[in-house]
Amino acid sequence: MTRYKAIISYDGTLFSGFQRQPGARTVQEEIEKTLLRLNSGKPVTIHGAGRTDAGVHAYGQVIHFDLPQARDVEKLRFGLDTQCPDDIDIVDIAIVSDDFHARYNKHRKTYEFLVDTGRPKNPMMRHYATAFPYPLDLTSMQEAIKDLVGTHDFTGFTASGTAVENKVRTITQASLEVDAKTGLLVFTFSGNGFLYKQVRNMVGTLLKIGNGRMPVSQIKTVLASKNRDLAGPTAAGNGLYLKEITYEDTLYSDHSGQ
Amino acid sequence: MTRYKAIISYDGTLFSGFQRQPGARTVQEEIEKTLLRLNSGKPVTIHGAGRTDAGVHAYGQVIHFDLPQARDVEKLRFGLDTQCPDDIDIVDIAIVSDDFHARYNKHRKTYEFLVDTGRPKNPMMRHYATAFPYPLDLTSMQEAIKDLVGTHDFTGFTASGTAVENKVRTITQASLEVDAKTGLLVFTFSGNGFLYKQVRNMVGTLLKIGNGRMPVSQIKTVLASKNRDLAGPTAAGNGLYLKEITYEDTLYSDHSGQ
Repeated sequence: MTRYKAIISYDGTLFSGFQRQPGARTVQEEIEKTLLRLNSGKPVTIHGAGRTDAGVHAYGQVIHFDLPQARDVEKLRFGLDTQCPDDIDIVDIAIVSDDFHARYNKHRKTYEFLVDTGRPKNPMMRHYATAFPYPLDLTSMQEAIKDLVGTHDFTGFTASGTAVENKVRTITQASLEVDAKTGLLVFTFSGNGFLYKQVRNMVGTLLKIGNGRMPVSQIKTVLASKNRDLAGPTAAGNGLYLKEITYEDTLYSDHSGQ
Repeated sequence: MTRYKAIISYDGTLFSGFQRQPGARTVQEEIEKTLLRLNSGKPVTIHGAGRTDAGVHAYGQVIHFDLPQARDVEKLRFGLDTQCPDDIDIVDIAIVSDDFHARYNKHRKTYEFLVDTGRPKNPMMRHYATAFPYPLDLTSMQEAIKDLVGTHDFTGFTASGTAVENKVRTITQASLEVDAKTGLLVFTFSGNGFLYKQVRNMVGTLLKIGNGRMPVSQIKTVLASKNRDLAGPTAAGNGLYLKEITYEDTLYSDHSGQ
């Protein structure tokens, strides 16, 4: 048995999310269908690092799976890439140790969220950025976003009724910039894990702050109160990108300068 | 009767092109259906400056149409924009003189063609750039593209059997750059008119030159011979954008520094 780690990208528009579910087109199902063909008709289960929702995109989702034999990774990547539907691409495949797990090995995730503030909207971006054609005060959003950095209980920013017990997470980076060329707002969040709908709820709250309908201190208020009702609405999934996942061993080798 | 000029943008992916045709979804039909509703159920015909093909996008297509009365143009733009399908956006509307014609008034058109040379491809760009994941020599393409500038008979770069008699056109600008951020190749062409499939055939020929399968002199050869068989294949429509249309009166006021 050989374990493979793959970096994949996908356009979330026509998927009901990453995770397999009955009667819906999912990223997991499409990749598993392709692996079945490449594995002489024997089923292969893939495990993803994150379960992206319907409409959410990925440039750097990580999955792992096992095959009975060691294969040439570039040939495997090419075969999987060309046989998957064209809204999924296989960026890279590597052989990893048998105990590697895409989800449970410690890692840092980076999400990006794009907002199109233009009016009229750009039709080419309707699936790839969330439209918010209203006045926004960038400075107050950039001030407020800093309050998300650090180790906090993010209960107020997750969907109510989620099964996860421990809602403490660490955000190592949170920033907001305007792309000079496209004019899109680019929110970037890195951290050791994110709760269900957390990024979209943080963005929804920041947009309310930018629009002057919540005070700059609202992020602090939501974190302290752990009250979902005090946060803004969930921003739409079409602006969200799972950008990059870095595992701890890689982080260490980065730190040693290699 | 009041004549309106509108600048529109659209995502060509789900359209069989601009021009109305039976049994197919077209930009013209969708806008005319919306105008019918806004004009108390009376039909309105629109005239476009250019007839983009299936899959071809536009940021700056220009149309004109007549309504019985003079309306507030921003209200009209907003109504048309919000009631059109969301792969069409109405960028701007202005009232123009009764003899303005989007197609027949002299104008300069600018087209852009995007090529994604990345491997693996970016799934988010599969409808918005043409994939060409092969080696390309940028320098030879940039040398060859200069030969297109000027007044030439472009017979060799149009689809054979087109009805247009006079195939002499003037290209005022032709350039190729690499977008530093996305890595996409950006071909830009401006001129006083383009023949059917001309831009896509010019790009197809330039890609052959860049890939070393045609000499740098091939553009000159095609222009001199007027032989379509000597040009490269027609590049796919998904990379093509009708970027901007500038009418002569505007050009003059630009020149006077206003």
